[in-house]
Amino acid sequence: MTVTKWNVRAGAYYDSVVLMQLQRGLLGLSGVVDAGVVMATQANRELLAANNLLPESITANPDDLLIVVKANDDSSAADAIGKVDELLTRRKSSNSQDDFRPRSLSAAAKQLPEANWVLISVPGRYAAGVAREALELDKHIFLYSDNVSLEDEIALKKSARDKGLLVMGPDCGTAIINGIGLGFANRVRRGAIGVVGASGTGTQAVTSHIHESGGGISHAIGTGGRDLKSDVGAITAHQALDVLARDPETKIIVLVSKPPSPDIATQLISAAMETGKPVVIYFIGYPPPARKIGNLQFAISLSEAAELAVQLLVNSNSDSQNQQLPLINYYLRGLFSGGTLAYETLLGLQASLSPIYSNAPITNYQLLEDPLHSRAHTIIDLGDEFFMVGRLHPMIDNDLRIRRMRQEAADPEVGMILFDVVLGEGSHMNPAGALAPVIKEIRVSRPEIEFVAMVIGTDDDPQNLQSQIDQLKDTGMTVFRTATEAVEYISLRFGRSVPDKHPPVNLGRLTQPLAAINVGLESFYESLISQGAQAVHIEWRPPAGGNEKLASLLAKMKK
Amino acid sequence: MTVTKWNVRAGAYYDSVVLMQLQRGLLGLSGVVDAGVVMATQANRELLAANNLLPESITANPDDLLIVVKANDDSSAADAIGKVDELLTRRKSSNSQDDFRPRSLSAAAKQLPEANWVLISVPGRYAAGVAREALELDKHIFLYSDNVSLEDEIALKKSARDKGLLVMGPDCGTAIINGIGLGFANRVRRGAIGVVGASGTGTQAVTSHIHESGGGISHAIGTGGRDLKSDVGAITAHQALDVLARDPETKIIVLVSKPPSPDIATQLISAAMETGKPVVIYFIGYPPPARKIGNLQFAISLSEAAELAVQLLVNSNSDSQNQQLPLINYYLRGLFSGGTLAYETLLGLQASLSPIYSNAPITNYQLLEDPLHSRAHTIIDLGDEFFMVGRLHPMIDNDLRIRRMRQEAADPEVGMILFDVVLGEGSHMNPAGALAPVIKEIRVSRPEIEFVAMVIGTDDDPQNLQSQIDQLKDTGMTVFRTATEAVEYISLRFGRSVPDKHPPVNLGRLTQPLAAINVGLESFYESLISQGAQAVHIEWRPPAGGNEKLASLLAKMKK
Repeated sequence: MTVTKWNVRAGAYYDSVVLMQLQRGLLGLSGVVDAGVVMATQANRELLAANNLLPESITANPDDLLIVVKANDDSSAADAIGKVDELLTRRKSSNSQDDFRPRSLSAAAKQLPEANWVLISVPGRYAAGVAREALELDKHIFLYSDNVSLEDEIALKKSARDKGLLVMGPDCGTAIINGIGLGFANRVRRGAIGVVGASGTGTQAVTSHIHESGGGISHAIGTGGRDLKSDVGAITAHQALDVLARDPETKIIVLVSKPPSPDIATQLISAAMETGKPVVIYFIGYPPPARKIGNLQFAISLSEAAELAVQLLVNSNSDSQNQQLPLINYYLRGLFSGGTLAYETLLGLQASLSPIYSNAPITNYQLLEDPLHSRAHTIIDLGDEFFMVGRLHPMIDNDLRIRRMRQEAADPEVGMILFDVVLGEGSHMNPAGALAPVIKEIRVSRPEIEFVAMVIGTDDDPQNLQSQIDQLKDTGMTVFRTATEAVEYISLRFGRSVPDKHPPVNLGRLTQPLAAINVGLESFYESLISQGAQAVHIEWRPPAGGNEKLASLLAKMKK
Repeated sequence: MTVTKWNVRAGAYYDSVVLMQLQRGLLGLSGVVDAGVVMATQANRELLAANNLLPESITANPDDLLIVVKANDDSSAADAIGKVDELLTRRKSSNSQDDFRPRSLSAAAKQLPEANWVLISVPGRYAAGVAREALELDKHIFLYSDNVSLEDEIALKKSARDKGLLVMGPDCGTAIINGIGLGFANRVRRGAIGVVGASGTGTQAVTSHIHESGGGISHAIGTGGRDLKSDVGAITAHQALDVLARDPETKIIVLVSKPPSPDIATQLISAAMETGKPVVIYFIGYPPPARKIGNLQFAISLSEAAELAVQLLVNSNSDSQNQQLPLINYYLRGLFSGGTLAYETLLGLQASLSPIYSNAPITNYQLLEDPLHSRAHTIIDLGDEFFMVGRLHPMIDNDLRIRRMRQEAADPEVGMILFDVVLGEGSHMNPAGALAPVIKEIRVSRPEIEFVAMVIGTDDDPQNLQSQIDQLKDTGMTVFRTATEAVEYISLRFGRSVPDKHPPVNLGRLTQPLAAINVGLESFYESLISQGAQAVHIEWRPPAGGNEKLASLLAKMKK
């Protein structure tokens, strides 16, 4: 039979290393079977309960420290609880350097004026405040802390962008700047591959695998997981792509992230095209639009992204430049007889064209409510059931498609009309012959509209494949044989757009030797020192010792 | 100024070829500017309106035939409307063979007893009835018709499966059986690649591209687009995989579909593993779990699926067999310190393991409501914000993971525990040293639980990569270096399951020369004949001439 005793300490701040060490200290005491030392949040209370360490009678607030000891007998439990203060003090006194450490960012900045970075790993509710201070001191920020509000993230990033500074995070686990790892980072050789990572262990897996495959890293810039949501607008990712595009040491870029919001995906792909450097993209879980679109390559795993980057480095004289195709500012309208071809084309184009609608959408927000009227970019499956009652399939009868083609051509917002021509048994015997005159007629009145077709068929098909292609090409249009080729071409025609210009991140400041101020986890400071970087660790305490009411009062008095 | 006149014909049946030809006939008359001949459904009325062919005063029911003529003057319009009957009759009389044609399925079956297939392309509301008749006559069915209810599809497929027959469709556009194309099909050489296509033009694009890449097709079996929804349960796709697995002519299988329901994806991938033949899978828009899992390869485009299949044929002596790993019947629990590694692993495993849950789900239905308790297969990100208040990250402190590992090991449903070990700066200096003793301890009490780890790091990392791997391997567990490798291994361990057995499709009947009865679009009959197949076309009319009330009365009297 075990005995459980506990102690609740109201609203004081303890850093998480101290809590871990207190727990280990308690576990090392004689007679102690288990111990838990946690901030009494709902999640942590549930965790204690799952470990049979939460007596029912405990009451504590989320800000309270909760210390629970389970021991073999009453006196062991009581002894352990009695030693909490001693254990907390022992931890502190072992830290002999404390006296020499600055206690504020401004003091640290004076002590190490070269510091161009501030690493922040204090608890989430204090992190934004520290970050604001760092921006005021004109420092780049590595923001490891999680539990930072979205509003704070947006405000910090906008403020940083205006100053040409980076805010990597919140919840950014990993970065490598000038060969120095920040946070959790693997030791990798320096090299010509730059990484933009909206995911911590994604960046670790990719950089490790690049190293193991013989490549090296110029910089690996983290963004934090929410950067690629619409609300934040990928501010850090855009800055990172831009600065790596300008960095002469970076020859290849890898962009790794969980699936971005669709509008953000389009913008980032556009920005990646604009870098002019080969970019390997892996949006984890986002179906790749193609293997390759101009200078972009799409991977389907972290290890593949690393391998592609290293291969690109080896074959860096290969054709990875975009053809200099003129850009189209208007909309695409795709008029398909093949439902699957429409679907595959939509899948490929949704990465570069936004917004895009369809009567056969991949995701609900792409649904074209009225299949009879296109909007923005649109892909229509004319063989959909909706159109088919009492009517022949558009592979047999071109009437519906010709009428829709004329309708689209009358829309001044249309810049390209795409369609498929599917040959074979059962289909119209001369679809190109039916469509070509209409295309020629439209090209007279709207010469700026470009026509693109994909022709599916074989040299044995009854329609004569080559003659079908020739009749279409004769109208001056572009003809492809697969959806893949058409998707690449169209993406390059529409995909690139020039984003708003903000002050660029200063490349010189990024590539100077890394020096940093560390606020929070001491192990991050120790890691910087062991890598040969200059660093200062702040002996940080929350405002008013973690007493929120007092802190709020102090803040008001400051104003 | 043009004049529009119209004519409404109540509730009679016309096939869509007749309607197209009537419309063309009207358009060819002098003075006629435009014409529309449609069944008066809401969609068709809207289409007429979009073409300025719908006078406001028209009233018509969806079953009515609506004939609209727009002409230069009143008399031309009136003349055209006056010629409708003549144009309809002309069409009929040109069809001189009509007298020799059977008017029922049973008569056709007597005329061509070799017929093993019935092609059905009558309007959707009649299609299920014709299909039921065909099944009663013991024929395979190619069901081109759309607008067939889901209930009818399920009933037809279950009934067919019990007889070892195939129902390809409804809304199945394409199939190739024994070198003969059904519906819309490209002419391709015969060969060793079998195709299962839940998408019409997907099958056309893949078979065409295989032909153009030098390969050939044994059979291409269509399923219809809804086959891979949970309700239908992929009945036809399972039959198709099974029969292609048994067909000695088929060496490689290609499976193409829009994204299946998650449970169906798992079952099909399992069935594809069980074929023992190399299978190329392209679920359009479904992020590929890996490039390769055992005998399975995953493509990201129709053209790539075709190219992979042809390559596999060329390299058919390469290792594409599954290792004979023992199967695990219990659940996987993944305990990750790396959020992105957890996410990538979930992405890879969701294709083979179902149901699978996570506190960092990819889709909502995977959400693990209570992160503290796993269910079925579970992937936990222990670095999620939920766990992080006042606690060190699991890359630094192993306490949380060790507790959870013990919790999972106490669950009798657990068969495998997976975790990551992420090395590098900032992380725990000896994670393997902290975890290995716990694994050894669990292996004593639960020796049947398998442990698998992925170790991320480099040979320059401060922890000593090789020593970390050695310490883990020392416990008897399996260690991988990438999520990709771990995903392949785990998929093969859990992925294969034996589906319920139903009467197999008779391979001999499938591979005998194709002979068919055609009901509906005459062009499909003509295409069969031109390909050298034996075929009979039925001069089909709907029951009671398309009068639904009378048809329903007749059906009641029959009972």
